[in-house]
Amino acid sequence: MAAHGACGICNLEARDMTPGKFITFEGGEGSGKSSQARILADALRQRGFDVVLTREPGGTPFAEQVRALLLDPATAAHAPISEALMFYAARADHLAKVIRPALAAGGFVICDRFSDSTDVYQSQAGGMDRAMFEMLEHAVVGTTRPNLTFVIDIDPLLGRTRTLQRRVGEAGMACGGAATDEGGDTYERRDLSFHEALRQGFLAIAEAEPQRCVLIDGSGSASAVARQILAAVGDRLGLAALKT
Amino acid sequence: MAAHGACGICNLEARDMTPGKFITFEGGEGSGKSSQARILADALRQRGFDVVLTREPGGTPFAEQVRALLLDPATAAHAPISEALMFYAARADHLAKVIRPALAAGGFVICDRFSDSTDVYQSQAGGMDRAMFEMLEHAVVGTTRPNLTFVIDIDPLLGRTRTLQRRVGEAGMACGGAATDEGGDTYERRDLSFHEALRQGFLAIAEAEPQRCVLIDGSGSASAVARQILAAVGDRLGLAALKT
Repeated sequence: MAAHGACGICNLEARDMTPGKFITFEGGEGSGKSSQARILADALRQRGFDVVLTREPGGTPFAEQVRALLLDPATAAHAPISEALMFYAARADHLAKVIRPALAAGGFVICDRFSDSTDVYQSQAGGMDRAMFEMLEHAVVGTTRPNLTFVIDIDPLLGRTRTLQRRVGEAGMACGGAATDEGGDTYERRDLSFHEALRQGFLAIAEAEPQRCVLIDGSGSASAVARQILAAVGDRLGLAALKT
Repeated sequence: MAAHGACGICNLEARDMTPGKFITFEGGEGSGKSSQARILADALRQRGFDVVLTREPGGTPFAEQVRALLLDPATAAHAPISEALMFYAARADHLAKVIRPALAAGGFVICDRFSDSTDVYQSQAGGMDRAMFEMLEHAVVGTTRPNLTFVIDIDPLLGRTRTLQRRVGEAGMACGGAATDEGGDTYERRDLSFHEALRQGFLAIAEAEPQRCVLIDGSGSASAVARQILAAVGDRLGLAALKT
């Protein structure tokens, strides 16, 4: 396996030297990462920190338009390499307009998914050549790599169940009604073996990059997971105030 | 200036060895290249050749969806690097599903715009780092480079006038009515200095790669330009039957 920690092209373990802190959340469908990103953003804001909470694909008007195209099940079929190039088109915009300016200003940027998702969805589970991923990462992200990444691990079957429950709830359907597997975006519609491959991909990244990644068991309650995450932010980024 | 002819990354003057012939048309707005691509396709078909006539961005259902997003003036602003990544996302799909299969089958592929347009619009005139263009070209296009490229040169002011005349005609407006500069896609709306920069970019490619490119004066009549093009295809690709 390639060394995830260093850039495969320039072979540098580069980190952006801007004063801000870049935290990403990664994991499969139904892992709770989006909720946890919001909870962490709120907790940091309550403690007086400047926080930009954002997501990928998305985070800028153009990137949200790319997101809408990519996640729409009606979009025509295309290979993982095309998908990855679209994600990096959106990512370049997001980095230039949101992430880099916020980090330069010294705040926290909390992002729901980032490059690890492209690594896992399009390369590891999607089959795109890893050299292509590394090249795009080098050219577009460069040194703006996350300081800290939470990999929220969940059994894909439990994740799927949570996603369906949420969708049933959003639709205002009665609890206990038959939840079907219909609906959902392009990725949610993939079968469980794809989601198992995603899980293994995220676990491989967490194992390969322990200095950047914190692996979190996402099967616990939201509040228990949130406490773990806040404590880890305090530990890893040297913010003593967060440990209490 | 970088050597356009060779790949700037692997330093090989690579050409695909498939039996087909890949011909591209490049040039600015109103140069007549789309019409000339159609005329050449018809001429080759009349002589019994298999021809796929296609265009970029586009040529597959997914790539046409990307085209629609990129050319829509309502699409949110984004940098040339994002634009180039989108074009290569579409190009990867187009190569895999249309261009490479047709070339492998031994036919002609005639494409209205290809990588030279990305080089000129996003890199030379758009300001994107040239290394980014070369990297994408190497990774996505690889050895599937055109055998022959017609660069149709036109004074941007004449090109603009032709485009406006066509639009007036399409709208069924009376000749002699006031043609305004409103409407048009994202690129047509750019000012004349941008279109002059495009022209210089295309001329630079034609000069740097005389073995691949044929520079054509697009100010003449469509039929005169078409005769020049057909003769050049015969000369350059060794098809004696086309010279008569």
